[in-house]
This record gives sequence, C-alpha cells and structure tokens, in this order.
Amino acid sequence: MINAGIIGSTGYAGQELVRLLLEHKDVEIKWVTSNTYLNKTYNKAYGSYFRIFDQECISDNDFENLIDEIDVLFTATPHGLSAALINKEILQKVKVIDLSADFRLKDKDTYKVWYGLEHASPELLEEAVYGLSEINKVDIKKAQLIANPGCYPTCSTLSLFPLLKEDIIDETSIIIDAKSGVSGAGRANNVSSLYCEVNESTKAYGVAAHRHTPEIEEQMSYIANKDIKISFTPHLIPINRGMLTTSYATLKKKKTYNEIKELYEQYYKEEYFVRVLDEGVYPETRWVEGSNFIDINFKIDERTNRIIVISAIDNLVKGAAGQAVQNMNLMFGLPENTGLKQIPLFP
Amino acid sequence: MINAGIIGSTGYAGQELVRLLLEHKDVEIKWVTSNTYLNKTYNKAYGSYFRIFDQECISDNDFENLIDEIDVLFTATPHGLSAALINKEILQKVKVIDLSADFRLKDKDTYKVWYGLEHASPELLEEAVYGLSEINKVDIKKAQLIANPGCYPTCSTLSLFPLLKEDIIDETSIIIDAKSGVSGAGRANNVSSLYCEVNESTKAYGVAAHRHTPEIEEQMSYIANKDIKISFTPHLIPINRGMLTTSYATLKKKKTYNEIKELYEQYYKEEYFVRVLDEGVYPETRWVEGSNFIDINFKIDERTNRIIVISAIDNLVKGAAGQAVQNMNLMFGLPENTGLKQIPLFP
Amino acid sequence: MINAGIIGSTGYAGQELVRLLLEHKDVEIKWVTSNTYLNKTYNKAYGSYFRIFDQECISDNDFENLIDEIDVLFTATPHGLSAALINKEILQKVKVIDLSADFRLKDKDTYKVWYGLEHASPELLEEAVYGLSEINKVDIKKAQLIANPGCYPTCSTLSLFPLLKEDIIDETSIIIDAKSGVSGAGRANNVSSLYCEVNESTKAYGVAAHRHTPEIEEQMSYIANKDIKISFTPHLIPINRGMLTTSYATLKKKKTYNEIKELYEQYYKEEYFVRVLDEGVYPETRWVEGSNFIDINFKIDERTNRIIVISAIDNLVKGAAGQAVQNMNLMFGLPENTGLKQIPLFP
Amino acid sequence: MINAGIIGSTGYAGQELVRLLLEHKDVEIKWVTSNTYLNKTYNKAYGSYFRIFDQECISDNDFENLIDEIDVLFTATPHGLSAALINKEILQKVKVIDLSADFRLKDKDTYKVWYGLEHASPELLEEAVYGLSEINKVDIKKAQLIANPGCYPTCSTLSLFPLLKEDIIDETSIIIDAKSGVSGAGRANNVSSLYCEVNESTKAYGVAAHRHTPEIEEQMSYIANKDIKISFTPHLIPINRGMLTTSYATLKKKKTYNEIKELYEQYYKEEYFVRVLDEGVYPETRWVEGSNFIDINFKIDERTNRIIVISAIDNLVKGAAGQAVQNMNLMFGLPENTGLKQIPLFP
Repeated sequence: MINAGIIGSTGYAGQELVRLLLEHKDVEIKWVTSNTYLNKTYNKAYGSYFRIFDQECISDNDFENLIDEIDVLFTATPHGLSAALINKEILQKVKVIDLSADFRLKDKDTYKVWYGLEHASPELLEEAVYGLSEINKVDIKKAQLIANPGCYPTCSTLSLFPLLKEDIIDETSIIIDAKSGVSGAGRANNVSSLYCEVNESTKAYGVAAHRHTPEIEEQMSYIANKDIKISFTPHLIPINRGMLTTSYATLKKKKTYNEIKELYEQYYKEEYFVRVLDEGVYPETRWVEGSNFIDINFKIDERTNRIIVISAIDNLVKGAAGQAVQNMNLMFGLPENTGLKQIPLFP
Repeated sequence: MINAGIIGSTGYAGQELVRLLLEHKDVEIKWVTSNTYLNKTYNKAYGSYFRIFDQECISDNDFENLIDEIDVLFTATPHGLSAALINKEILQKVKVIDLSADFRLKDKDTYKVWYGLEHASPELLEEAVYGLSEINKVDIKKAQLIANPGCYPTCSTLSLFPLLKEDIIDETSIIIDAKSGVSGAGRANNVSSLYCEVNESTKAYGVAAHRHTPEIEEQMSYIANKDIKISFTPHLIPINRGMLTTSYATLKKKKTYNEIKELYEQYYKEEYFVRVLDEGVYPETRWVEGSNFIDINFKIDERTNRIIVISAIDNLVKGAAGQAVQNMNLMFGLPENTGLKQIPLFP
Repeated sequence: MINAGIIGSTGYAGQELVRLLLEHKDVEIKWVTSNTYLNKTYNKAYGSYFRIFDQECISDNDFENLIDEIDVLFTATPHGLSAALINKEILQKVKVIDLSADFRLKDKDTYKVWYGLEHASPELLEEAVYGLSEINKVDIKKAQLIANPGCYPTCSTLSLFPLLKEDIIDETSIIIDAKSGVSGAGRANNVSSLYCEVNESTKAYGVAAHRHTPEIEEQMSYIANKDIKISFTPHLIPINRGMLTTSYATLKKKKTYNEIKELYEQYYKEEYFVRVLDEGVYPETRWVEGSNFIDINFKIDERTNRIIVISAIDNLVKGAAGQAVQNMNLMFGLPENTGLKQIPLFP
Repeated sequence: MINAGIIGSTGYAGQELVRLLLEHKDVEIKWVTSNTYLNKTYNKAYGSYFRIFDQECISDNDFENLIDEIDVLFTATPHGLSAALINKEILQKVKVIDLSADFRLKDKDTYKVWYGLEHASPELLEEAVYGLSEINKVDIKKAQLIANPGCYPTCSTLSLFPLLKEDIIDETSIIIDAKSGVSGAGRANNVSSLYCEVNESTKAYGVAAHRHTPEIEEQMSYIANKDIKISFTPHLIPINRGMLTTSYATLKKKKTYNEIKELYEQYYKEEYFVRVLDEGVYPETRWVEGSNFIDINFKIDERTNRIIVISAIDNLVKGAAGQAVQNMNLMFGLPENTGLKQIPLFP
C-alpha cells in the first residue's frame, strides 16, 4: 500500500486527486491539507464525499510533521508555494509530485519572467523530472521529484510529438489554438469565473502571453532538438471539464494521411492512454471526460500543405490529477494504468 | 463471472449500463443489440468506448439465439417492446432486468390508460418484482424478472419511504415537484431536445399527466398500505444528468427535525446508497453525478406544519442503469454495491 | 425627457436598467453610481456598452449633489442601503424607485426578522407603494416612492391573483415551488456562484426560510383579504436569466379549465405584459427572455382537486428592471409599455 | 413602409429576421412561409411570439402569388432552394436578400464542388452582390439581389480587412480558427445537435473541408487583389449564439500595435457596427449577443512575428439576419442602423 499526502486538496485538481486516489486499490490517503477548509471534514468542501471520505483537512503548516506517514506527497498548490515547501530533506523521505508550475521550467530566469516570482528552490530544478508520462517514462520511473505538466502542454505536446521527433513539420510554423473548460481557472472566487460571466460566451485570454507558452516551447524544443517558438492562444469555453487543442503546422514535405498515421501508431502503440482515432473521426472532449485518455487525430490540408492536429483531454485528469497518478504508478513500479481505467462519463 | 446481454444498448440508459457493467469485476458483456447501430462497433455510437469496448451491435431479432450465452438479460428498450420480447421460456433460461416501464404497474388496465398500449404479456405482471432495491430487497433476491423503477419514482419514493411507512404524513397532501436533466428524454432526435431549445430555459411538462404518476402512487400505496393519490409535476432543466425532487406533505402531528431524522437513519442505516445529509445541508444533483447514491434531507416548516423533503439522484444511475446493476447484484448474491462504488464526478 | 439617475448601476439588475433606459425614447440617463467601478467608464464593467454608454461611474456618496439633475432615481442596491440613503428631502425632489427589498414589507419588525437589519427609515414605509404594476396601478401612478417587487413575489403573485381575489382556492393549501436562473444571485464573487459550482447541477436553497416568503404572503394577504401563509421553496437552475414558479392549491369547489381561464382573461385582458397561454401550453422561460412579459397557464388536476399554476418571467426584466421601468412609465403618465416592447430573444 | 416577405421563416435565422423586422419601425411583414409549420400561427413555432406576431405560416409554393404585396423578399432557406426559387421575373418586382449560400460564390463550378449541387440559376450569379455591408456598401445600395454572407466569412473577413487591403500580412500564412454556437447548425433534428450531445463538450468539424472556406477565400482574394488560400477550422461550442474567430498571419514587416490600430480606425471610423476595442481588451461573444456589432482586436506576437486577430459576432445577427436587415436598409436608402440598435443582452 502506498501512503499518500496531499497539500492543497480542496482546489479542483486536488479534489480530482482525492477521487482518483480513493479509487486506486494500492493507495491510502493518510492526510490532506487545506487552508480554506482547515479543520473541517472534506465533505464540507465537496458534498460528494459525504460518507466516502470524511477526513478533516489539516494545515499546510503541519505537513512536515506528518511526512513520515507517507510515501508520496502531492502538491496541488498555487504557483510559488510548492517551490517554497519542498526541499532536499523532504525529497530524501518521500517522492514528490508537484502539480503546480514550479518545477516545470528548467531555467529560473525564464520562470521569473513568466511567473513574476523569484524561484524559491532553484537547486531542485535540475533534479525535477518533467512528468509527461508517455515521453519521459524512463526518467519518471527513477525520479524523486516530478514536475507534473500543465494541461495545455500535455494536450498539445503529446499531439505533436511524433511530428516533432521525426522532423516532419516546419518548426517555425507551429500555431496552437486551444480551448479549455472553466475548471482550469480553479476554485478561486473572482467575478470573471462566475456562472453568468462564463456561460453563453467564449473568449481568448492570455493572448500571446500565457504562462504555458514557455513550457510548451521547452518540451517541444527537447523533442525536436532545436529551439522552437510557437504561437499559442488559449480560449475559455463554457464547460466544466475538457480541453481541445487544434494545432497547425506546415509539412516539410508531402505526406499522406496513412504515412503519418503509421508514425503515430508506431510511437503510441504501447500507450494505453493515447488513442489515435480512425481517419475522419476527430477528438471531442465529451469522449474523454472523467478519464485519463488523450484522443488525437489529424488532417492534411493539401490546399495549404498544412497538417492540422486535434487532441482532447480532460484537463483535470490527463491534464492534472490523472497524469499525476500515472506518474506515481510509474515511480512505484505499478502498471501505468492502475486506478486509471475509469470509462469516460457521458453524457 | 456473470454473462450479460443488453437489448437496446445504445440509448442513454443502455450506454450507462455498458459503462457500469464494464467496470464491474464479476460481469462480462457477451453481446449488445442496437437497431440504430446495427453491425457497427459500439464506439460508433459513443466515441468514448474507442479501444475500450469495440463489440459489434447485433439485431434485436437475434437475441433469442444467443440467450444461452448469458445469465442475465437487460432490456433498455422503449415502452411496449420488452413486454413483447420477454416470455416464460426466456425467463426459464435467464434472469431479466427490464429498464422500461412494461412491468412496473401491476394492473394491465392502468398500463393501458397511461401508456396507450395493450400489454403484450400480462401473464408476467404478477411475477415481476418491482426493483426498488432498498425497499424490496428480499423479493428482488429471489426474482427472475425485475421491473426496474423509473427515475422519478425512485427518487421520490425513497425520499418519503420512512414517512409513509410510519404514517407520519397526511397521505392526501403529497405534492412532488421534480426537476430532471435532459438525458431522461433519451437519445431520440426531436426538435424539443435540441441544444438550443433546452439550453437557457426551464419548463414543466406532463403537468398532472406524467406516466410516472401511477407508478409512484402504486408504490407509495403499498408502503402506506392505503390508496394514495399525489400531485406530480416534472420539470426539464438544462443539465445532462441529475434529478431533484422536492416533496411537500402535511404532518399528522408535530414532530421535530431530530425525531424524523432518527427515523430516516433507522430505515436507512444499512443502506450504502442512501445518504441522509446533515441538518441544514440539502441535496444537490452535482454531489451524486455519475454515482448510485441518493441524497436526502428535509425541513419541517412549522409555519405551515408541512415537511419538505428533498432528494437527488443521477437519473441514469440510481434512476436507471445503476439500480439495474444493484438489482443484478442482489439477484446473484453479490454484495449490493459491487461495481457501484464510483465516486461522484465533480465538477 | 425624463432624466434618470441610478445608484448601484453595475450589479446585474442595475445593468439591465441601463439597457432598458437607453432603449427608452423618453429617458436620458444623467448619471450612474458604482462603488466597484468608481471613476471608470461603464464599459469597463460590461464590455457590451463599449461606444454605446461610456459615462464614468460616480460614487454613491455624490448622488445627493446631483439630485437636481434628475427626475427619477433608481436604487439597485443591496438590502439596507437604500433605506439609509432615501429620505423625505430626496422624495420631495425626485421620484424614487427602489429595486431592493427595503420598502416592500410594511412592518419594520417583520423586516428585521427576515433581513436581520434595523430599518433605517421606517417613517417612509407607509408612503411606499408596492410596485406590482398590474395590481397596484392606481397607487403607483400617484406614488413618489416605489418598492419594486422581488422576482419571486412578482412571478407567483401575478400567477395566483385572480384565484386569490375570487376566493377560489383554499388559502391554507398554497405551495409555491420556484426555479430561478443564476443572475438572481447577483454579481458578487462567492464560490457558490462560480461557473463550475452551478453548471450541471440544481438545488433548493433557503428552504422554508427565503426572504421573499413574507413579501409573497403580505401581498397575497392583501389580495385575498385574509391572512395567508404559504410554503415557498426556491431552486437554483443553471441558466443566466429566467424564473418559473409552479404553484399548487386546492380548489374550494370544482371548476373547469374554461371557467377559470375566463377569470384570468377578465382580470388581465387590459394587461399588455400578462400572457395567459392557450390551453395545454405551459410557460417556458425561454419564451420571455429579455422581455417584460409574464406567461401564465394552469391545469386542474381532477384526481386531487388541485389547481397547478405555472408562470414564467425574466427575473431581471419583469422580476426587476423591467417592472421598474414599467412603474416609471406609470408614474410619469407614459403608456405603460413604452420602451418595453422588446421581443424575447431566442435562442 | 417597406413590405417584406420571408421564405423559410421558422428556422433560427428566419426567426431572428422576424424579430428584427418586427422591431424595425419602417418595415411591415406581410407574410411568412414555413413548410414545417404550414397553416399554423407563428407562435406555434416559437412561443415567444404569442400575441406579438400571430400570422399563419403559408406554403413556399404560394409565395409567387403574393409577390406583389411586398417590396423585399428574404430567403432563409436551405442551400439549393433559393437558387431554384429566384428568377429574373421576381427580381424585376422585388429586391431579394438571400440568406443561404446560393449566390455567394461567383463560380457555379466552385459551388458544385463544395455544395454538391448543380446551381439552379447560374445566370443570376453575376448580378448578385455579396452583402458584406461594410465593404460592399456602394454596390449593395444599387443591388436587386443580395447574397447575404455566411457567419464565418463575415466574422473573419471583417476582422482582417484592413490588413489584407494594406498588404500587411503574408497572404499564404492565414489561419482562421473559429468557434461557433449551436444555433449555426439550425433547427433540424439530428442526434448530433441534441442537448446532451453538445453540452459539456467541444469539437472541431469540417476540418479543412468546411463550405465557408471558398467563400472566405473568394472575398479575401478580392480584397487583397491576389489569390488567397487559407486554413479554416470551425469548432462547435456549447452556447446558443455567438461566434469567435481567432486568425493568425505573419506580418510582412514589423509593425507596432498602434500603427495597425490606426489603420483599423481609419477603415472603420464611419462604421457603426464595427467596434475596434481598446488595447488589451479582446472580443467576447457575450458582449455582442443579440446585437449587430462585430468586436475586433488584435495582438502582435513579436516572438513569432505574427499578428493574432480576434473578432466576435452574434452569428444569428451580424452573421445572418442582422446583416440582412442592414443590407435592406442600404438598399432602401435608410440609415444603416435603423432597427438595429439593440443593446447586447447580458447576462
């Protein structure tokens, strides 16, 4: 049995982690922290857990005393906080999976530019393994500290991975137009996330300025082994969960659908969670809701010599808590999909 | 291993059954029928099942030939069809759980009045056990044919059960005002179920004329052991899943919240799926979504001497496929919640 | 030209008032106050007004200095505030239409019980006219201070008015089950109004304790000329705008649909905004969205001898700003529907 | 008074036309046709019109007999039908504004390729004026037959117009990623438009194959005076109304935000319906809902040397019926915004 602790358990990603870990046969949640629901039973934060998970939330400040009870620590905290909380001593005692952005960028200066914060533990950046499970599997298995990827980087990077690796697309031509459900904004109470403000509308946000941009670029650059700059525009759409990325790139030379399809299948044939769909069938977020799948397909637009790649995930699962559990499975030598075989919930 | 067949597998209730049975460790789905997706793989009906469940749908007409392959038959068919399909021979070979209304009313004349159909197998009405699991558990365990309850009857009857049984409320005073998500209308393509027609609106329908009325009355009459007539008004609200009933009744004599709460706890203390909430906390459909729970609470309005009872279910789970699986568990001697411990999905 | 000022212009009701007054040919908005958007142009609060209404919001504190510029003052403020702001001097200079609850209840003690506040200007309670336009038309025309009705009281009282007035229903039997869109909760940023918390769910709230209860009872008591106590349960449903009330009452003696229909037509035949629908057609909120109409219809349930009355309004229009403008029209001698003929927006 | 007839009045675009024409002080609707609601009063199709517009719908087949009653004919018909209905004789008697795609493409072969139909009246293609009001104003004023633009072409072409006209962007680099509400799919009853199928999901459709592609390309080619090929991907999002396009293009040379902003203001300074927003404020569909506005803004992404242009319309207004009325105003010498000053409805 893997004993787990969760810091920041009452945000949306933290809650999803609680759900998945409770449904995981090899895990026991020893404690959860929450400042908002401090000393309250968990079902006060989420009524769904009434009689299912009734632990009292403890304070972030208490977690170090309880570190010996656990084997793995999940941090589902605002940016800046986990970098301040995690240190070498903790990493000697437990494996850490950080769902925040703090350990995703290798360069602390880049971090400062995009997050506006001085990094609190730059000495750990080197050690942290970027937890894009399908791509960094070998390193994840040996890691003590995982930087769990952002939702946008997960969805877009996995969808372009074979193309980048095989050098099929012009790396200066990449445009990623993404659409996200509202849970990505978290449970913070600001006017712009109110029901009436989001419902019946859509908008772009963080235009050419979203913090996931350098994360996507860093990962794509590793894959392609060259410096990549992308255009990335996220949009907010009125759904609770779900993320769709539509990526555009110019093909370096003519390719048929089948040639490229074969590549995708070759790269992903062992990957339980990556579903490359049948020709002509494009991902829809409803078909992955509540699950850890990423659905991918593409079309070659011969009129413009571009490839259009579409991918869908549940932003809270594959885009956050699900991938965190997937990484935990890898780190503890479990089959990668343990506890993650939930069938998407529809409708 | 229980081998199962499903007739009418590609409606919303049928699909939910597929989901739950696939997640049930003791069940194997041997075959599914669908006229709409005949000879097509199941994921053509629901993309979520791509690489999860890729059986081809067979015809309703073929099912009798395949009856020997299965131990239990689920019929998730339009009203009238299962009464025509099921007969004594089939019941000798397999247990049948009918999710339609065909075997819910004991009197074929009442059936005709409300459904406008001559009942095709009235000789089976006596044998059929009404599958409200918490109430008819003993009979369900011995049953060969289950009439799986409607969503409204499930939600309202369980919420009033202790009050009716204990003769606490004036049985002429019962009013049930219900709110249902859109999946209750099924996957049929009619204009009134189009997104733009349902979204951003609410309405009552079947006012004083809904077919679940006699079903509710029959069950409540059994419980109270007297003839009960209710007022029942269903409303359509723009959510996929979820049902809330708000029931009003006059108290026969003064009772405190705690006195009645104790009764509920006494009746339901062994029931895994019935959650009587803490005082002041009222059911919300989001807290049961995707699960087989029914959440219940009530308030005594001293100003009017009425009790107001509120209950919430997922209409596709406890209101249909989940309760069907619960009944299957009972019929096959399994723990009642086997395969039904999914945590509600939120948000 | 009527010159208008609005205190609290950037809440949802305030904004709707701005929309309706800008579309009103006889009104000019001289100034608007907003503490949240103080000194900002109105389109910073609502982007829809860009280049349409670009006044700067002024402070609540400045309004008295500007009282000479206006003929009518609308207060769309939180409860308690308008009672503190309005006084005899102001009422000598301008007509006041208060959209808050401060002047709706005639008894300051009842106010204190339900609102938890000492009333700041009880001396004005007698003078205030309850602005249910269709019922109190004569008094409204002469009024200097209007207590603009709450959304629930408007929707339910108008729907039962002929029945109460004609003494057709048992006044102890009235149950009002109401459903409201989320804009009724206002633009305050609390977690329970976040998109993900409201979307895909429904719940009752304020069970047997909602503040509109005494307001409804007071108005119904006036109409019926006897003391009336009701059961009232509001529900939140995931739509921006719209309110539906389903009311139940026992008939004192048998009546046919047509007999009662005739009464409704008699009472409302001169009323532009009251639409009594054709038999068998029930109100839906989508058919009144964005308009000042109230749609009403009913069914007699002979099995239980009850009448079920259903009515629908747009809570921000007939339930707030629209009725305020309707009252203004009456007070200034304009045709009642001036500036209020907007056709409902669908889909 | 302009007398108007509408063929196909009970689709979503037809209904919006009814709404706008009823709110237009210079127009009288003489008759409307509908095959679905033949001989029924209009409120049977849309309950919102009860007591507002109660004409009976006549048959498409009768319209020629009634052509003398009208000055302008609107055709809101499926593709193929208006080309079959309109002819020279009709055009001699009345002005025609066709909301279908039949007269938008100048080349009948291109029409056949994308619409799969032989064009029924190719001799009219030359005469038809493409009704993008802001761009073709001079010709529209003199036109007898207007091809009212598609929603996607309207939204994207207006947003790029100054850039194309001024030759600022590389015309081979244009990518348009569009998001549309569900009303764009019309009121036809197919499973994919059901509430439960669309709600809580998003998807791309018509990937590199949507019929608006050649229409956009044709108009952009006229503007730029060179042959333009674009990548265009529409997405379906769960809102009733609203369309957002996010367009990407490479700048031919470095430009500042202000330089380009000045261009937009120069091109659109006389245009009532085009709102170029303040720097840093991006279009959201909620701010134009129910109105004829198009909101536009852009960002220059210096890292990639691209310009990202975002625009929002209400697909049923500026994207269909509103622009049709705008064109009618131009054709009849009325101020362009007559009857089109509705303030966006929010929330």
